[in-house]
Amino acid sequence: MFSPPELRQDPVTGRWVIISPERQKRPQDLHVTPAKARSRDDCPFCPGHEAMTPPEIMTLVGTALQAGPNRWDVRVVPNMFPALRMDGALAVGAHEVIVESPDHDASLASLSVAQLTMVLAAWRERIVALSRDARLRYIQLFKNHGASGGATLEHPHSQIIALPFVPDLVRAEIDGARRHFAVKERCVFCDIIHDEIRDGRRLIEENVDVVALAPYAPRFAFETWILPKRHGSRFEEAERGEYQGLARLLKSVLRRLDRALETPPYNLIIHTSPFSEDVSDIYHWHLEIMPKLTRVAGFEWGTGFYINPTSPKEAARVLRAVAV
Amino acid sequence: MFSPPELRQDPVTGRWVIISPERQKRPQDLHVTPAKARSRDDCPFCPGHEAMTPPEIMTLVGTALQAGPNRWDVRVVPNMFPALRMDGALAVGAHEVIVESPDHDASLASLSVAQLTMVLAAWRERIVALSRDARLRYIQLFKNHGASGGATLEHPHSQIIALPFVPDLVRAEIDGARRHFAVKERCVFCDIIHDEIRDGRRLIEENVDVVALAPYAPRFAFETWILPKRHGSRFEEAERGEYQGLARLLKSVLRRLDRALETPPYNLIIHTSPFSEDVSDIYHWHLEIMPKLTRVAGFEWGTGFYINPTSPKEAARVLRAVAV
Repeated sequence: MFSPPELRQDPVTGRWVIISPERQKRPQDLHVTPAKARSRDDCPFCPGHEAMTPPEIMTLVGTALQAGPNRWDVRVVPNMFPALRMDGALAVGAHEVIVESPDHDASLASLSVAQLTMVLAAWRERIVALSRDARLRYIQLFKNHGASGGATLEHPHSQIIALPFVPDLVRAEIDGARRHFAVKERCVFCDIIHDEIRDGRRLIEENVDVVALAPYAPRFAFETWILPKRHGSRFEEAERGEYQGLARLLKSVLRRLDRALETPPYNLIIHTSPFSEDVSDIYHWHLEIMPKLTRVAGFEWGTGFYINPTSPKEAARVLRAVAV
Repeated sequence: MFSPPELRQDPVTGRWVIISPERQKRPQDLHVTPAKARSRDDCPFCPGHEAMTPPEIMTLVGTALQAGPNRWDVRVVPNMFPALRMDGALAVGAHEVIVESPDHDASLASLSVAQLTMVLAAWRERIVALSRDARLRYIQLFKNHGASGGATLEHPHSQIIALPFVPDLVRAEIDGARRHFAVKERCVFCDIIHDEIRDGRRLIEENVDVVALAPYAPRFAFETWILPKRHGSRFEEAERGEYQGLARLLKSVLRRLDRALETPPYNLIIHTSPFSEDVSDIYHWHLEIMPKLTRVAGFEWGTGFYINPTSPKEAARVLRAVAV
């Protein structure tokens, strides 16, 4: 009934888009306001409703992988309305959902550090598993939180879209990192971490493994990056202690944002290395959290530039001052 | 009290942002939902309230330029909360508002063709005037319509931000157009217009001067481009008849969108040539209308790719079928 998803490139700029008609019923069904949040009773991600989703790809119980659907702490399922599919003729890819907790009312900020560590383990497992498919080049892991953040279901979840090529923004980061390395023989992200910790004004929080900072040129008010202090180009190759440190810091940073900005909608993304490229010396995996406090509008769509009303120094100062 | 606006470039990717703290009162004042629409009584753009804005830069009465504030059809004023300022030490620029009608409840789609032609005349006048300042390199003209489109005042208005350099997205279009010209010795936009009119499937409407089409790789559902049929690189150098043809087609296209999609929020932008570059053979000015029907979220912010649930062929078919 629907055309399959299709990858298209703009003939002038080369910009990629995914035309994905399966994600739409009729044009009239497109709406700015997302579908009304479902109650627990008809939430497809709640325990007992496993039959409302396609069969699970994996579940985690405690720290153990388990096949059965009956009891789970984290559950990964195919997206019901995939932007890309592995059997796509014109656009091979994958689209998965990570249900981050059995608790409908939880949020990433409210999960225990142990539960959050399981979510990170699920992210890592799926990246490793998908990296084995030679048709795929990159995984974009992302989370849309809150209606204005683009979430259409309120039960806490994140998503993975696996792509047959490397996204423009990751390419731009790798190109920039390569230029820096050519001149300095150092990772640009390692230099940023070193400089920001020393300077302190844009520092939000750190522990022995990871650091949270407000980047120098943020697109969005209160944009926050979390980076591992130890150089590493792949999120999925971090060490056990780093995931635990990340879980602790991520929880703390999200609580700071919730308290300072009254539980804002946000998008969270991971940037890691493409599967089939060795950028291990120059690239540095990281998380980006983008609260959605202002609207991206005509100026941004026309220029590709962003107007940000909050300086990163001020954002960091506000977030540091929150008691967590 | 506030730091002046500042242009900053990300140290990894080179992406530009404008840090503009004057546009914010306190962090707590950032909100996803825009300020409540003001009634006529306290609308700064309504006739009789001229003192609520800075003194006007120009007004149009009928087709005549006029200095006085007392009667006007189109009025241009400085933005009260400028993203950039001409006296900015770190970020020179300008930010103006074009009030498109004295009628608070009008919209670009409801204006008469004569009134719409005056709006286009005001856009042209301001681009020409600002192009005389050697510190400026580009004008981004844009319109945010509807709360979800980023409009904070409902009285119909558009905006101009003048920039001291050429935006990335315009640069990407010029680079792509130059590559096409090097191979084909033709303007890529002229080729697109020719091909789309012949093919017809993505054509929305045309008249003797301009054509409206759904682009091959749209970022957004129902994204619509309007281009002049006669090759021209600068919007501000179009001919009188072309502005009239554009006014007629723009009104018709906006009415089609209003009827097909129940008066959607949208962003409208103009892409024209940078002031100090001669790209007259290769570049082709155009309007882009981007209805805001779906949310841009984590996947887009992580990759720079866009997922669009509506194929341009389907969007064009729906818009063509609207009776206007």
